[in-house]
Amino acid sequence: MSNDRFLKACRREPVDCTPVWFMRQAGRYLTEYRKLREKYDLLTIAKTPGLCAQVTLLPVRKFELDAAILFADIMLPLEAMGVNFELKENIGPVIHNPIRRCADVEALRVVEPEEAVPFVLEAIRLIRSELRVPLIGFSGAPFTLASYLIEGSPSRTFVQTKSLMYREPATWHQLMERLTQLVLEYLRAQVRAGVQAVQLFDSWVGCLSPQDYQEYVLPYSRRIFEGLADLKIPRIHFGTDTATLLELMRAASSEVIGVDWRIPLDRAWERIGKGYAIQGNLDPATLLGPWKLVQERTREILQQVEARPGHIFNLGHGFYPDTPVENVARLVEFVHEQTSSKEKARELL
Amino acid sequence: MSNDRFLKACRREPVDCTPVWFMRQAGRYLTEYRKLREKYDLLTIAKTPGLCAQVTLLPVRKFELDAAILFADIMLPLEAMGVNFELKENIGPVIHNPIRRCADVEALRVVEPEEAVPFVLEAIRLIRSELRVPLIGFSGAPFTLASYLIEGSPSRTFVQTKSLMYREPATWHQLMERLTQLVLEYLRAQVRAGVQAVQLFDSWVGCLSPQDYQEYVLPYSRRIFEGLADLKIPRIHFGTDTATLLELMRAASSEVIGVDWRIPLDRAWERIGKGYAIQGNLDPATLLGPWKLVQERTREILQQVEARPGHIFNLGHGFYPDTPVENVARLVEFVHEQTSSKEKARELL
Repeated sequence: MSNDRFLKACRREPVDCTPVWFMRQAGRYLTEYRKLREKYDLLTIAKTPGLCAQVTLLPVRKFELDAAILFADIMLPLEAMGVNFELKENIGPVIHNPIRRCADVEALRVVEPEEAVPFVLEAIRLIRSELRVPLIGFSGAPFTLASYLIEGSPSRTFVQTKSLMYREPATWHQLMERLTQLVLEYLRAQVRAGVQAVQLFDSWVGCLSPQDYQEYVLPYSRRIFEGLADLKIPRIHFGTDTATLLELMRAASSEVIGVDWRIPLDRAWERIGKGYAIQGNLDPATLLGPWKLVQERTREILQQVEARPGHIFNLGHGFYPDTPVENVARLVEFVHEQTSSKEKARELL
Repeated sequence: MSNDRFLKACRREPVDCTPVWFMRQAGRYLTEYRKLREKYDLLTIAKTPGLCAQVTLLPVRKFELDAAILFADIMLPLEAMGVNFELKENIGPVIHNPIRRCADVEALRVVEPEEAVPFVLEAIRLIRSELRVPLIGFSGAPFTLASYLIEGSPSRTFVQTKSLMYREPATWHQLMERLTQLVLEYLRAQVRAGVQAVQLFDSWVGCLSPQDYQEYVLPYSRRIFEGLADLKIPRIHFGTDTATLLELMRAASSEVIGVDWRIPLDRAWERIGKGYAIQGNLDPATLLGPWKLVQERTREILQQVEARPGHIFNLGHGFYPDTPVENVARLVEFVHEQTSSKEKARELL
């Protein structure tokens, strides 16, 4: 591997400049990806190792990114469980058999990843053989997966999810148990296949109060991170809208916590504590604006953390499809350039 | 007026027990409301003073609530501006001519409230003549109204809104100017007609970073609150997902700040400062659970603020339609009962 800046930053070791990768860096903002999507749907790409590898590598070949992230959909491992879903364009996952009662949970089968998602593991091996930066594997977190399964389609209020949680706590905990087992095995299999770090996406967990997070979610996320500890790879814990959950998320024990733009990065780092690395936190919508704005907001983020070891530059959530590629290219360069000079300045002191 | 607990709490004066009202307290969880809705659609009710008064009074007659809130939709004042919308069941406002460019903003007319929404003002007069608790008027805040106008339908990402804000700041500021003028005149007219407090709903503003809030929103919200100052009525500033915006919202200068369940109420009050009253913050989804859970979470909130003068008990957002009426009735009683004893206990000290 020619560049291990990202892995070093995860371990809070000094780096020559701040590493950068982006959520949804292989996505619709790339012409090459859109062209592929004219021929294949998302699930076909994700399930065909050659195509999956090609898409995963696209952004790393185009920009000086410091990590690649496996191209996949968080719903993939659920298919073998018996979940019947489709990915609707501009909407997201729609589940044809949403979870509404205990029997629905009992019907979910936990299948070994080697049997359920062999294509993902094969894609990882393919990608690794061609990649010169670290490869990040990922999974949806139990809460976020549960919210899709229960709501049946993307939600703003998550009221069905909360309702099940409050009205049938036993069903909720049983569902979380199964998803925890699934996610843990899925991530362990990804590491065995070759990923060098993992990110747990609890994208929608910010809809909960701290009390609910602690009672209904934290024990499961913690079990996943603890179940990965022996593998000695950096573990990233990410969610949006988590400004008031950060201390609790820290208790789930990962090396890195990813935060969104709602909280200034320095304030987030204070709350998490210096014993953790941090990832974030540019609002991806910023990239839809002029370069001047992207530059200004990026500079603010970098100034807040002052190139302290342990910062991984990223967005607060994934790229929007309309993101101009030009802004992405300049952003990668800008972060590297700004933080190299800082490092140099520090050495001179 | 027989009960001014709510107004006293807004001014942080001691009260005999903590006042309670609920966002969407006149809504679909009430059988009486659902029956009326079989005959009339929401806009017909809101535009017919007799029906509007009847609906506004429903919950105050049913429960020992300490304030009534005008039954209205935040889209109402926009109609006379030239905005063509419908309220889709289970979705929300859908705008047929969303704002996409400068010319769309220029086409918006600011019409005097007496001409644009005479029915609202007439309803207020009717309600006041029958009401024994204070009446709260309200308006959507410029940002939240703008987000509906730009997105065209409810959004989770608000990416169109942010995109316009970043790409065409002049258009954004012009739109906010017009909405500010509209909202200020609308609220002033409501006060003239008889409302005794006003709440500005900036429901979706929590999608912004603190920097964006400060630059694109705060000046307008501040102008509205300052423009109401001479009327000497309590002004409530509410948004969801505002944990990291509270210090900035305070700068908009209202008497009361309303917060949602994402932040513990005591932590929110610390951030806002003791010179402000606070409103909140039970997750309305809690009410879908068993009474025991509602009681537990309510007790936590009350313990956090220890009956300190200046707390108004409310939800963190509006009731969901499936809320059991039984839980609502018990909740009102429980808050009163718990906080009366606290007051008594204090007196004994």
